[in-house]
Parts: sequence; C-alpha cells; structure tokens
Amino acid sequence: MKIGIYGYGNLGRGVEYCANQNNDVEVFGVFTRRDPASVKTVLSSKVFPADDAVNYSDEIDVMIICGGSATDLPKLTPMLAENFSVVDSFDTHPKIPEHFTAVDTAAKKGGTLALISAGWDPGMFSLNRIYAESILPCGNTYTFWGKGVSQGHSDAVRRIDGVIDARQYTIPKDSALAAVRSGKNPQLTTREKHLRECFVVAQDGADLTKIENQIKTMPDYFADYDTVVHFISAEEMKKQHSRLPHGGFVIRSGKSGENNAHNHTIEYSLTLDSNPEFTAGVLIAAARAVYKKKNRGETGCITLFDVAPADLSADTAENLRKNLL
Amino acid sequence: MKIGIYGYGNLGRGVEYCANQNNDVEVFGVFTRRDPASVKTVLSSKVFPADDAVNYSDEIDVMIICGGSATDLPKLTPMLAENFSVVDSFDTHPKIPEHFTAVDTAAKKGGTLALISAGWDPGMFSLNRIYAESILPCGNTYTFWGKGVSQGHSDAVRRIDGVIDARQYTIPKDSALAAVRSGKNPQLTTREKHLRECFVVAQDGADLTKIENQIKTMPDYFADYDTVVHFISAEEMKKQHSRLPHGGFVIRSGKSGENNAHNHTIEYSLTLDSNPEFTAGVLIAAARAVYKKKNRGETGCITLFDVAPADLSADTAENLRKNLL
Repeated sequence: MKIGIYGYGNLGRGVEYCANQNNDVEVFGVFTRRDPASVKTVLSSKVFPADDAVNYSDEIDVMIICGGSATDLPKLTPMLAENFSVVDSFDTHPKIPEHFTAVDTAAKKGGTLALISAGWDPGMFSLNRIYAESILPCGNTYTFWGKGVSQGHSDAVRRIDGVIDARQYTIPKDSALAAVRSGKNPQLTTREKHLRECFVVAQDGADLTKIENQIKTMPDYFADYDTVVHFISAEEMKKQHSRLPHGGFVIRSGKSGENNAHNHTIEYSLTLDSNPEFTAGVLIAAARAVYKKKNRGETGCITLFDVAPADLSADTAENLRKNLL
Repeated sequence: MKIGIYGYGNLGRGVEYCANQNNDVEVFGVFTRRDPASVKTVLSSKVFPADDAVNYSDEIDVMIICGGSATDLPKLTPMLAENFSVVDSFDTHPKIPEHFTAVDTAAKKGGTLALISAGWDPGMFSLNRIYAESILPCGNTYTFWGKGVSQGHSDAVRRIDGVIDARQYTIPKDSALAAVRSGKNPQLTTREKHLRECFVVAQDGADLTKIENQIKTMPDYFADYDTVVHFISAEEMKKQHSRLPHGGFVIRSGKSGENNAHNHTIEYSLTLDSNPEFTAGVLIAAARAVYKKKNRGETGCITLFDVAPADLSADTAENLRKNLL
C-alpha cells in the first residue's frame, strides 16, 4: 500500500514514523503547501507541492490528510476525496454529521472511499463506546480526557494580552473516576469531572492577577471548571512542557440479571506520550482498511464504526484467529 | 430479531435476561435436553425439547448456543449451523482454528451464518488485542485474568479425594500489572503474572495437608503458580463464594516516533459481577450482527474480527455517528 501524507506538521511526521513500522506500508511522498525545498522530512520521504497532488492520484492508494479540524479538514477532505481514497482525523464532534455528508458526496462523485474521524477521540474512544453500549444496553458511559495537553485551551490562553506562551493540561478528577468505577452511575457536572491546570509564561511587568482572572473566567474554556494557574519562565516551559502527552478513559457501567442486581464495568484507557504519534498509528491502520475495502469496490464515506477489525490488521484471517482471538 | 436459546444453564439464563434489555430482540424459546416440563425459565420464555429445534428453523433468526466448550460446542455448533444461523462462546483457544473449520463447513452447507467464540476472552479481549496491535505495531500485548472464579480450576480441585466443594480465584499480581503499565515491556513468567487462591470444603477427617499438597503440585493447573489454599465450611462457601465474578486486563505497551522514544499504553479492563451474564451480553450483540449480515447474504463462519462495530448496535448509522463517534 502506497500512502501520501498531505500536510506535514506533528501529525504528518507521526504518520511518516509510523508508516516505517509497518512492512506493508510505503510512503509515496509528503505534500505541503509550503515551499517543498524548505521541508526536510524525518525519514527522507520525498516532498511535493500540495497543488501537484492530483498528478499522482494513480500512484497513491490512500492519501492521509494531516490537517487541523477547525479550518483545514472541512475543505481538504472533500476536495481530495474527489481524486483519492482518503483518511482524516476530523475531531470537531458536533460537526461530524456535516463533514460526513460533504465527504460522502465528494467520494461518491470521485468513486473513492473516505474514512473520517480516525484518531483516539473520535476514534478508539468511539469504538469503545459503541462496543460497550451494544454489550451492556442498560447503563451509563463516561468519557474522561487527560492527563494531557489540550491544544485548543493552550491557544486560548496564549491569546490573552501579556501572555507569551501557555500550556494547558486537562486532568480527570480521581474522585469522579472512583465514583464511576464503583458502579454507582453518578450524575457528574463538568466541574466534578475534570480539573484544568495552566502553565503560563507572561511578559515582564504583566499584571499576573489580571491574567489569572481572565483565564479562570473565560467562558466555554475555563469558567465551568476548577482551574489552577502557574506562572513559569520560558526556560521551564521549554524544559518541562515541550511534549504533547495525552490520554483518557472511557468507562461503561452496566447492569444485568435478575432485578439488574449485577454490575459490570468496562474500562478503556490510554496513556500517550505523544498525542499526534498515537493518532498517526490509528490513521495508518485506518488507511489499510480503506485500501482493502476500496479494492472490494466500496465507495463513499465511512468511519471506524463501519470497519471490521480484521481489515485494520496486516495479518491474515487465519493467523488472527490463531494468535489473537 | 427472534432468537432461540439452546441450552439453559447460567449462560442461557443470562441470555434470557439480556434479551429482555434489548428492544429489538425477542426470545422465541429455550431448547433443552432435559424434560421441558422440569425447566422453569426466569422470564417465562417457552421451553421446547432440544430434539425438536429443527422444526422451528423458519421461525428463529439466530440460535444462541449456550453449551460448554469442552464437549458440547464442538458437536452442537456444527450440527445446529446446518439449519440455523448461530452464535456460540467457544473458548478453548488452541482449538479455535479446528472449530472454525468444522462450523464453516456446516454453515456453508446449510447456507447459514455462524459466529463463534463471542464472549470476553475470546471476544472483547481479542478485539482489544487486534485493535491495539494494529495501531501500535511495535510493542507487546499482555493479558491478565481476574480477579475471578475459574470454573475449570474449581472443578479440578473438586475432583481431589476428600474435597466436597471448591472455588478457585485467579488473581493478577499487582507487581506484574505495574511493570507492564510502566512501559518497560517486561518478560513475565506464569508465576509472576497470576496468583491462584482456592477455597475448599473438605470432608470431616480428611487429610488437609495432603489435599493442599495435591492442589499445589497439580500439573498444568497449579504447579506453575503460587497457590494459596483456605479450608472453609460449607456454610461459608455458600455465603461468600456463590457468585461468579470475573474480569481482567488487556494491556498493549507500544513505541513510536524518533528512535521509538515515545511510549503509549492502551489498557482495557473488565470487572464483572457475573461472568455468564456479561458473556450473554456479547452473545446478544453478536447475534444482532449475524442477523444483519445474514440478511445481506453472508454465509459461513465468522468471528468478532469480521464484524463492523455498527452491526453490533441496534441504533442507526446516523445516530451512532452523531452520539457515539
């Protein structure tokens, strides 16, 4: 399977590294909107101008689109799906139905197959929600994020006057996790589920009290949470907070049997040193499924919900049954 | 979807309870090898003689076979697959390829669809192994069982002279779990991974030291483990050990990025009050997938590896994308 990598930031680099771990995957090239001569790839993949991509549509089995969900993917995925089978990691949950429809239309027009929203949430967490709810229909599902860096919240803090740099960690509260695991099916408020911790580099002479207050009262992002703010130096930021760890938990608590007296807890958790590199792993597996399904004649838009797990694997059905079942 | 329940022990009762939680599932009836008049079902499902099952093949969409893996399922599943689309929970791992072939032959002959080995291991644990290995190709997968009752080990202790009753709990060792979660990819021996704890009711005057020694040195079952034996009264057995809890962990520890410097841990765990009732939940969801796939014309034998998650759910694709993705 030959893949193209469209967009080359943290996610694109992660895809290049991950492709190298999979014997059945070859990187045809990286497509960038920057000057190709200025882009040095981590494993020496070739670099092409993004605008030339369509010239290589016969040589690429699946294009993995490594762009942001806010502005890139809503345009790029439908556009590229007209000429390529594609995979993306679109993660703006409320806009998934709209994105699905746009991509489905484009893919059907182009006779291609597109898989959207592959990553960990949406992605692996979604899969665990659907499996758990299908198996335990009477119960509640809880999703917790973190401990990890939220890029959106970090960006929001950076936009405040007097802030040079910022990193925001989302942290699930132990008390909430314990209540959910106990099988009590608690009703939890936003504030009860997660804590937000910010590390901020401020300009010399900035009004720190004012910045802290602006963070803690910011609607949507922080106002509904308990938020802790630490002011640190630029050196400490670089030394302690340059990685992009993330993770989280999906927990389903369900009942069964006589008078629903029996409790069951299904818990799925991720602890990731690198959010983009893990997402890249999901994208590569999803690209493999797209490749197999496209070869069987499928077109249009799908998600991981539509993919049989065997199609994500490079191994044979016989080996999978023997070794992993 | 109308299901039949073939075999009516703990698992069959669990299926009857779980069917009642799913609005799209109706129990046509229970099939038993006992005298039907002697079987009282927990939710008043009708009872038929097992030998008459074939007379109802047009009225049953999927037959859920609730038998044991040692002797029942290797005969029953191929036999019933000639006339019914079926689901079973065959769990003798080394014999899965052989069982698959026998069932596949029978189902193709009968023009039916059969899904084998649905449960939690094989089943949900298998799914987590295949997803995790597809996403993180460089790493190790660890499966731990427990804390929970192992029926096979309990039976083995019961067969010892002087033993009236026994219950064996398999317990994962915290030290092993911690080593795996640390990302160190340890090599673990059988003894390092699990502890075995036995509760035994002995005959009056039995040689307890001899029984304990026979347990601890029993090949395959206990000799390779640290085993703790407690002698208790029949009353205490009934009061403290009458439930069938189980559970366990599947943990994948993988690497990514530059020089594989980043660690990722995927952990899936189950804490089940009732092993058979949870298995029943998986069987019902699997039966739904079989029903949908059979209606699309699929025949032969499949496993959960071949099932797209959306087919396990009673909800529509649109709702699933909107609410669970």
